[in-house]
Amino acid sequence: MKFNIALLAGDGIGPEVINEAVKVSDAIAKKFNHEINWTPALTGACAIDAVGVPYPDETHEICMAADAVLFGAIGHPKYDNDPSAPVRPEQGLLLMRKKLGLFANVRPTFTFPSLIDNSPLKRERIEGTDLIFLRELTGGIYFGEKGRKDGGETAFDTCTYTRVEVQRLAKKGFELAMTRSKKLCCVDKANVLETSRLWRETVQAMEKEYPEVTVSYEFVDAVAMRLVQWPNSYDVLITENLFGDILTDEASVISGSMGLMPSASVGEHTSLYEPIHGSYPQATGLNIANPLATVLSAAMMFEDAFGLKEEAEAIRAVVNKSLEQGIVTEDLAGKDAKAYKTSEVGDWLVANL
Amino acid sequence: MKFNIALLAGDGIGPEVINEAVKVSDAIAKKFNHEINWTPALTGACAIDAVGVPYPDETHEICMAADAVLFGAIGHPKYDNDPSAPVRPEQGLLLMRKKLGLFANVRPTFTFPSLIDNSPLKRERIEGTDLIFLRELTGGIYFGEKGRKDGGETAFDTCTYTRVEVQRLAKKGFELAMTRSKKLCCVDKANVLETSRLWRETVQAMEKEYPEVTVSYEFVDAVAMRLVQWPNSYDVLITENLFGDILTDEASVISGSMGLMPSASVGEHTSLYEPIHGSYPQATGLNIANPLATVLSAAMMFEDAFGLKEEAEAIRAVVNKSLEQGIVTEDLAGKDAKAYKTSEVGDWLVANL
Ligand SMILES: CC(C)[C@H](C(=O)O)[C@@H](O)C(=O)O
Ligand SMILES: CC(C)[C@H](C(=O)O)[C@@H](O)C(=O)O
Repeated sequence: MKFNIALLAGDGIGPEVINEAVKVSDAIAKKFNHEINWTPALTGACAIDAVGVPYPDETHEICMAADAVLFGAIGHPKYDNDPSAPVRPEQGLLLMRKKLGLFANVRPTFTFPSLIDNSPLKRERIEGTDLIFLRELTGGIYFGEKGRKDGGETAFDTCTYTRVEVQRLAKKGFELAMTRSKKLCCVDKANVLETSRLWRETVQAMEKEYPEVTVSYEFVDAVAMRLVQWPNSYDVLITENLFGDILTDEASVISGSMGLMPSASVGEHTSLYEPIHGSYPQATGLNIANPLATVLSAAMMFEDAFGLKEEAEAIRAVVNKSLEQGIVTEDLAGKDAKAYKTSEVGDWLVANL
Repeated sequence: MKFNIALLAGDGIGPEVINEAVKVSDAIAKKFNHEINWTPALTGACAIDAVGVPYPDETHEICMAADAVLFGAIGHPKYDNDPSAPVRPEQGLLLMRKKLGLFANVRPTFTFPSLIDNSPLKRERIEGTDLIFLRELTGGIYFGEKGRKDGGETAFDTCTYTRVEVQRLAKKGFELAMTRSKKLCCVDKANVLETSRLWRETVQAMEKEYPEVTVSYEFVDAVAMRLVQWPNSYDVLITENLFGDILTDEASVISGSMGLMPSASVGEHTSLYEPIHGSYPQATGLNIANPLATVLSAAMMFEDAFGLKEEAEAIRAVVNKSLEQGIVTEDLAGKDAKAYKTSEVGDWLVANL
């Protein structure tokens, strides 16, 4: 097969980790007789520096024309101290999600046996955790009307959802649940919010289309607790944009493998794959960042965007092998163990595929 | 001294745990020569059953006339399955907060040395944790305009904050920080929300009035992570209503002592003290619920509402002693240890004061 992939390396360590994911993807493509055509494009702080906007039209065209998008990370400390600055890298992210119609963010949290002791949680709490959040990504309070009144003394943000927006996200949740343990948890705050009541009634109405799926409804504050107490009691969770932002980040640290967690954003026009970690500016150019989350994001891309399960499994297998054999960057290396460079990890993966 | 305390036992186990807090408070009052006049009043599901509304006017009058309010818990399963039912216990809670002007919810999270192994977190992560959230409680998306449009197909909720609302909450945060380690963390989502930008600029402008306090600004998703990773890196945190709802509940489980955490809600007209746990309906009437969070809430009341530090310390000391000696309810009793009844724990506390 032949694929066009848009390559959005972004800022900070983005280019370094993307580089290793490209190496591994090319090696897999070669092994399985595929051809990948990579098209790099600018996004984030580096796009602001180059052309004045964080998500240039040219980048958008490249993404729209591609079969999938592989994304690194964006963000630069020079934008951190003034969240109201007129142009910020995050705006590029939000614009990109909206324009590409990426309405569902798929965020798995799972454990690697060899890393379980890195978790802040006790082993018996975290063992066996394997959950997936589907976070709504193009609606809610992120995109509603916002502004000031009373000469700047009052600020407001509006959270809005339509039934159709809830349905398309929930549909993905039900479908995903059908491929797993048939358990779906809808996370809302229906005892307070009208948008949550719309979520709940919409999901309730869809239950009869998926009679095999057992649906539970939990309040967001209760989920924030249970995620720390009994993360392995969850399987597939669906939720709105802001709750998803908070809960997926909370979930990501419980596994002890945050530097390894991949993600996907899917929707109307294309799909995008990215590590959940940030741009880690302090490490830029040092060749020390952990490339595995990006490599595993590429695996998700092979499986979900291209339907190539065997290729995806081959990538995951070699990543597991590298972890078992301690071919890891300094964030994962034990106190007295050798820490490998970003590019050395990538080279090892390619050599051992 | 002489005090009038409004007694809102509420639903489920509320009356049972309140009963023990009253016993302990009366014993302390006797010991220190104070006089307490308790006035019971209805709230929650039991108020709906009795008079049709969850926060009757009469209850409000009683609270307004009191020096402080001691609150149990509200909520009943018969209201759980239909969050859009016209009358629900939670509405009483929100109305009460609003009408009593309880704009600041004070939520400490700390550890008891004897209970630290109950925490889902590893000992080295949780040890030394002693943080306090100040959650804004009468503004934000809980109280903004909400409703439906397009014949019910679109729902919206509005989050609104005024500078004055932020200032009065932040002032309490700065003052609290001054009595502790002089560290204040403002939690927001200023990279996305206009209300968060108002929060941040308002707090930034107040920094110069408290030159000794070191203020940090963190995004809500980052705090959701760090609370699990390094809870003891926090001290005083201030945040808006919905973020506070989620994060205080997340924080409450990390200590391993959730059944012991007290809270206060303070503001314009009076102050209210309550355990953070819920009404635990399954345990109603069984005399097994843990009364310690309510007893410790009474201690907060003595210290903060009446300025009686010695009395508060005496209560805390006897609670510690009961924990050390294993005079605890079944939730805390070890596998082979005796579990005491709710009322037995209260009796023991009174006898050992
Ligand atoms: C950078 C920010 C706007 C973004 C979000 O909140 O969506 C980030 O936290 C994320 O989750 O991807
Ligand atoms: C019951 C509910 C309305 C309430 C809230 O969200 O404020 C509760 O979760 C709390 O935190 O006291």
